[in-house]
Amino acid sequence: MTTGRLETFADGVFAIAATLLILNVDAHIGNASDSVAHDLLTGWSSYAAYVLSFLTIGIIWVNHHTVMTQIERADRTFLFITVGFLMSVAFIPFPTRLMAEYLTDDFANARAATITYGITLAVTAAWFNAVWLYASRSRRLLREDADETLVAGITRSFRPGVPIYLGATLVGMVSPLASFILYTLIATFYVVESSIFARPRRRSRDERS
Amino acid sequence: MTTGRLETFADGVFAIAATLLILNVDAHIGNASDSVAHDLLTGWSSYAAYVLSFLTIGIIWVNHHTVMTQIERADRTFLFITVGFLMSVAFIPFPTRLMAEYLTDDFANARAATITYGITLAVTAAWFNAVWLYASRSRRLLREDADETLVAGITRSFRPGVPIYLGATLVGMVSPLASFILYTLIATFYVVESSIFARPRRRSRDERS
Amino acid sequence: MTTGRLETFADGVFAIAATLLILNVDAHIGNASDSVAHDLLTGWSSYAAYVLSFLTIGIIWVNHHTVMTQIERADRTFLFITVGFLMSVAFIPFPTRLMAEYLTDDFANARAATITYGITLAVTAAWFNAVWLYASRSRRLLREDADETLVAGITRSFRPGVPIYLGATLVGMVSPLASFILYTLIATFYVVESSIFARPRRRSRDERS
Amino acid sequence: MTTGRLETFADGVFAIAATLLILNVDAHIGNASDSVAHDLLTGWSSYAAYVLSFLTIGIIWVNHHTVMTQIERADRTFLFITVGFLMSVAFIPFPTRLMAEYLTDDFANARAATITYGITLAVTAAWFNAVWLYASRSRRLLREDADETLVAGITRSFRPGVPIYLGATLVGMVSPLASFILYTLIATFYVVESSIFARPRRRSRDERS
Repeated sequence: MTTGRLETFADGVFAIAATLLILNVDAHIGNASDSVAHDLLTGWSSYAAYVLSFLTIGIIWVNHHTVMTQIERADRTFLFITVGFLMSVAFIPFPTRLMAEYLTDDFANARAATITYGITLAVTAAWFNAVWLYASRSRRLLREDADETLVAGITRSFRPGVPIYLGATLVGMVSPLASFILYTLIATFYVVESSIFARPRRRSRDERS
Repeated sequence: MTTGRLETFADGVFAIAATLLILNVDAHIGNASDSVAHDLLTGWSSYAAYVLSFLTIGIIWVNHHTVMTQIERADRTFLFITVGFLMSVAFIPFPTRLMAEYLTDDFANARAATITYGITLAVTAAWFNAVWLYASRSRRLLREDADETLVAGITRSFRPGVPIYLGATLVGMVSPLASFILYTLIATFYVVESSIFARPRRRSRDERS
Repeated sequence: MTTGRLETFADGVFAIAATLLILNVDAHIGNASDSVAHDLLTGWSSYAAYVLSFLTIGIIWVNHHTVMTQIERADRTFLFITVGFLMSVAFIPFPTRLMAEYLTDDFANARAATITYGITLAVTAAWFNAVWLYASRSRRLLREDADETLVAGITRSFRPGVPIYLGATLVGMVSPLASFILYTLIATFYVVESSIFARPRRRSRDERS
Repeated sequence: MTTGRLETFADGVFAIAATLLILNVDAHIGNASDSVAHDLLTGWSSYAAYVLSFLTIGIIWVNHHTVMTQIERADRTFLFITVGFLMSVAFIPFPTRLMAEYLTDDFANARAATITYGITLAVTAAWFNAVWLYASRSRRLLREDADETLVAGITRSFRPGVPIYLGATLVGMVSPLASFILYTLIATFYVVESSIFARPRRRSRDERS
């Protein structure tokens, strides 16, 4: 299978999952009371959850592209691992809605929402690891000219994903708001680190040359 | 017509139908009672239906790709058969929601839901057969170099689809839960069989060479 | 502008509009009474509207492809006419829902629904004419080697669209059900005529050669 | 990163955001009273908001294409700026729904809706400026042969976006309806100016040659 069609399908799922997030904002705000202005000003958890999840899916999209630049071909096992990975990306709008709606609710519901969110992201990170490890183990599906340093760098940078999200989820047992802030910091740190600091710069320069 | 644009359209429908499935989970869970945690823990039929349908659409996508690698051109009849096939794929989210919501309801409703699901998949399998048979009959739309063995293999592997799903639907008359498990086993078996066992391996090696 | 990106955007809108149609079925059936089986068996207007609109969007997609094979470049006016055309295609799910829900309601509501549906399709046909006439007038955006006979054939085949749909809409003033059947016959006739009868066969053979 | 995949993802978000707009019309009309005809005839704010937002997203799509024709490569910072830009495009359906529903409501709610709409478009314009300025500053990501006059022209034509939308938003403090009309005039003016008047004509001729 050419990876081209795989990328079209994956980009479709990423784009739809990200764009569907607005339906959550829609469902949460503007119906609650008689005053639209009041609802808009107090509905911060909806905007925050929207921004967080859109950004997270955006990061996944950027990383998926980086990964796919190193992969040349796909076998059926790889396709089905990708389906599992996309299944978990497409799930993200659901815990996003829970968090939008219940982060400002009582403690038990806020906790249930943030824990579900954290588990979803941890599972997504695990699937993404599986996608990459299956393709890169013994260079199974990699391009002939895949750069050894970059390949090792991707493997290394994927490793902390699952434990970090599980850690933030555990924090959610005690303080839902703290775990929400942690999810946001993780995404923000990732964007800043990978786009401003030197190492990724060099990496993307490698890609170009 | 180049098959390229046909694949873009089909991939769009596959990706959207799969990603819309999350709306079902959304509608079912988190509104039922005051306790989000309780709803999340008892809503297993929503997750199960989500995973089953996402996987099923994923399998259809993988198979559609395999089929399209053998097809070179498209005439109008083929396009309209493909529209019918996609119409039935895009229908899948509806019986998925029925199953998510009513599998744990009383017997009559659970039965109606699982039977609708099974009929939808049987009809989808029938359309998929039509797509393939129209294209491959007398090698009408096949590539010049389409491999005779692979073509015969696809035809053979598509044959059991309709009877298997009709069988599982009939089981649903007696036990909705049993038919749900059967749908899951069919999808799981397919993934395992086609990605781990030897035959498909060889087949995909053929594709590459 | 390359027409490639225009086709990607258009195919996205076609695929999403068609796939969103299932949400109408979802909203209409399975909530009305306590018996899912009863709702499923009496909800024929939802299935019929789903099939009709999916098929209609499928026909538009096939025709749009035929048109685009003759067009080489795009200027801004053409892009904005296409945006208007897509705006009217993306509107189709709304009157489809009206028809699904109100075709079996009292006369006044059924009439309002079918008239809205007919006007939407007539407007879509008018936009599609505008797309084609703008591109083909003095061969403004056509390919150098665009076949004069095919170009004239497309122009001729597009002409009856608006009057036919306006006619069926007028019938809806008197009998909503009759106009619904007319919409279905128009779509069915088109599929049969263009894929089975001789003329289009020859045309598609022309495309290939 | 090739800009190809970036365009696929962006086109996906544009197409989905535009097509989701119809769900707003759907939610607003046809449920309010017993007479569908009455709802259809009095629901003008839903149609108007649908047309306005679809057209606005269409304009963004056309402009994004013009911009991307001048850009050759993407680094990670550019990708994340694009994610922010798309996040704000995907947000548009939400204030569209507010405007559809509350433009004909009491003054306070209509004002809240139109102000939210204006701020969303101003933020979108700001992100679009960021996308372009990041890519064009010192010709960072531009094609070798990017035309200096066209590059300067894009920069100049993007400058008024934010102040114009902020101005129309301020008008919404006093008269929501006036600001709605302003949004419509801005979009209409843009389409007419860029597709009919001479300057863009020449520009697109430049693109072709």
